[in-house]
Amino acid sequence: MTLNLKNLLNPKIKMSKMGEFQELQPIEGLEISAVSADLYGDGRDDLTLFYFREGANFAAVYTTSKITSANINWNLKIKRHFVKALMVNTQNANVFTGIKGAQGLKEIAHTLSKALTLKSSQSPKGVSEVVKITDLLFASTGVIGEEFPYLKIKNRIPELVKKLRADHNKFIWFKAASAIMTTDTRPKVAYEECKIGNKLIKISGIAKGSGMIAPNMATMLAFIFTTANIPSVFLKAILKKVTQTTFNSITVDSDTSTNDMVGIFATGKAKNSKIYNVLDPKLQDFEKALHRLCLNLAKQIVVDGEGAKKFITINVNGARSTTMAKNVAFSIANSPLVKTAIAGEDPNWGRIIMAIGKSGENVIANNIVIKIGDHIITEQNRASKDYNEKDVKKYMQWDSIKIDVNLNIGNGSYTAYTCDLTHDYIDINADYRN
Amino acid sequence: MTLNLKNLLNPKIKMSKMGEFQELQPIEGLEISAVSADLYGDGRDDLTLFYFREGANFAAVYTTSKITSANINWNLKIKRHFVKALMVNTQNANVFTGIKGAQGLKEIAHTLSKALTLKSSQSPKGVSEVVKITDLLFASTGVIGEEFPYLKIKNRIPELVKKLRADHNKFIWFKAASAIMTTDTRPKVAYEECKIGNKLIKISGIAKGSGMIAPNMATMLAFIFTTANIPSVFLKAILKKVTQTTFNSITVDSDTSTNDMVGIFATGKAKNSKIYNVLDPKLQDFEKALHRLCLNLAKQIVVDGEGAKKFITINVNGARSTTMAKNVAFSIANSPLVKTAIAGEDPNWGRIIMAIGKSGENVIANNIVIKIGDHIITEQNRASKDYNEKDVKKYMQWDSIKIDVNLNIGNGSYTAYTCDLTHDYIDINADYRN
Repeated sequence: MTLNLKNLLNPKIKMSKMGEFQELQPIEGLEISAVSADLYGDGRDDLTLFYFREGANFAAVYTTSKITSANINWNLKIKRHFVKALMVNTQNANVFTGIKGAQGLKEIAHTLSKALTLKSSQSPKGVSEVVKITDLLFASTGVIGEEFPYLKIKNRIPELVKKLRADHNKFIWFKAASAIMTTDTRPKVAYEECKIGNKLIKISGIAKGSGMIAPNMATMLAFIFTTANIPSVFLKAILKKVTQTTFNSITVDSDTSTNDMVGIFATGKAKNSKIYNVLDPKLQDFEKALHRLCLNLAKQIVVDGEGAKKFITINVNGARSTTMAKNVAFSIANSPLVKTAIAGEDPNWGRIIMAIGKSGENVIANNIVIKIGDHIITEQNRASKDYNEKDVKKYMQWDSIKIDVNLNIGNGSYTAYTCDLTHDYIDINADYRN
Repeated sequence: MTLNLKNLLNPKIKMSKMGEFQELQPIEGLEISAVSADLYGDGRDDLTLFYFREGANFAAVYTTSKITSANINWNLKIKRHFVKALMVNTQNANVFTGIKGAQGLKEIAHTLSKALTLKSSQSPKGVSEVVKITDLLFASTGVIGEEFPYLKIKNRIPELVKKLRADHNKFIWFKAASAIMTTDTRPKVAYEECKIGNKLIKISGIAKGSGMIAPNMATMLAFIFTTANIPSVFLKAILKKVTQTTFNSITVDSDTSTNDMVGIFATGKAKNSKIYNVLDPKLQDFEKALHRLCLNLAKQIVVDGEGAKKFITINVNGARSTTMAKNVAFSIANSPLVKTAIAGEDPNWGRIIMAIGKSGENVIANNIVIKIGDHIITEQNRASKDYNEKDVKKYMQWDSIKIDVNLNIGNGSYTAYTCDLTHDYIDINADYRN
């Protein structure tokens, strides 16, 4: 297992090296399968099933978009703390598909519940429990407004259930992570371990997303599986907190999707002692491990941003509040002019100034200190005396660029992650559907 | 004089034809000159002077950025209702130029006030009035953070003043409109006439801007000159109102600049009867004419948006309020995914849905009706029965694209204007400074 999170912050590491994969471990209590329902018409895997024979505690955060997928609506309809399965289809978002999209999904749910109930009765232990449709979750990603191909999906359910594997080695993880991709150029996986009490806890995660990425869940799916035994209300609290500084700190193009979902599933197979309080110090190690894992996946999404050639880290310090730091950081991270300048390896720092100004936050120009890499660019409302454009131009040839902004008016800080804006972004998106 | 405003809304007019120039008339009481201070190093005009021998009533709106140019700061320092001159330099924004930038500007002001006082004493009428530095306004546009070239500018003041012309024909207007350009590919001019009482009123306007364009004054300069006799407080009220639905309704890249200014100068030479009330019905015709002129200039800026190949009009109707309509319109207009799809002539209307959703406004999916051109795309939460992708694809080959969104939950409406996002935007901005 290589912990390559730090690679993402190392300016001397090439983009292609940043995402060196970790070796994911099986999560006891989880079975996985992925097949092709031929939704893309080219035979690639596009349908994935995660099945918990004995169920799993569950928590999720969803898109903040006011228009959401029928699948997201299904998940939100009733509060679920304990689930049996999650099915993910790609290619079709099941958004603006009318009553047919919702009905199609319901039919799929009935078929899947029957198939899993049958599967459950074939359990070696002979535990024959009915899998209800309310035990099922659904996620989807792809084109909006095209008819939901529910029959194609429904017809593959028998095979999907048949292929479920409890002994999911790293190849199965990759297969699943690949089956949830759309314009992604590579699967995104991460693995962490920690302890709760004296028990070893495993956490495996996969994610997808490379366009329509902006805070508040963008077009992003992330599914995290752990052997920990943690009640779902505590899972929810920890996931919400961790998301703020991981999945919600990235932006590719400021566009937010209708389908985003980050879910965590805890099988309890690690058999750690029961947790009665979210502030239990035994959970600290788990929260840190989950944070590392989510930040790792979030950064992999940025690295794989549509057309991205450079990974950009924007640290804002010295703000009056975290909110102020966050607004300034995202004003920079979402500026097309900053992102194209970085694509051109041009240290046009005036655009960083512009982006700070347009954030609407009451900054004091005279206090602002900007650094690109280790180079002080500006202080006291003018270019720094030490500023040497040649040196900065050289630094900007690296694949990972760090911008530090100190507002020097308080203690609030925030870090945002983004990528540059290149020709390839236009190419990928000008005719995405063909 | 051709009124070509309607060309901008005609889908069958090619981009290159949209900006057919109107023939501007001289404004009595105004003298104009433009020279090269060699700020670009290639001899192009970059310094422009507008001089009102007998002064002019004045009002302006400025950028909302929290970091502003030393020139903007100069203009805002004291309230000016009556001014003698406006000087505009391009190439250097005079932002983040430290104390030197502000001091340099002050020196320029002193030199200009002396030169204009001398000029005033040479007046044929022999009116020898002192031009004070507080009678002067300054605007600038260009790169942020590079040393302000105040000496180069100062040294050209004698020639600039000497070349002032009261008989400014259309060629002089073009010269001035060209001298304030940065990455603009063509000058932007507009002309309107109206009546106040029985007097003919002339209004001539010029503008610049093609990147960093977003509401709240973006990187945009617009200067409007009229022969009307209107007190500056009323000018201010009318300008603010008109700006909301003209200059503030356009966006190229969502980036806002540090230097924006829209100013109106009224020489009073039309000798219309005095206005005592901003609600005076005699002003209605003037307000309408000013609105047409500002909308014309605003649209010319969008048409000349960096890399723009298509002009996009986004009408949002049926919102609960104007604010709601505006938020939805700009959420669509600023979406890189919508703008790249239009560049690719791909009717990927799911992205319009995405952009409506991410606006954060409480829309009702089932009520939304979207039209592209005259084609109904979606209604009742799904693709319209009449939707024919081939027809819409054909429509999208036009240079002017109209998107209508009816939210069907109220009476609020707003129209935003933008352009597509193309390879050329990246090319222009990846290495803007070289």
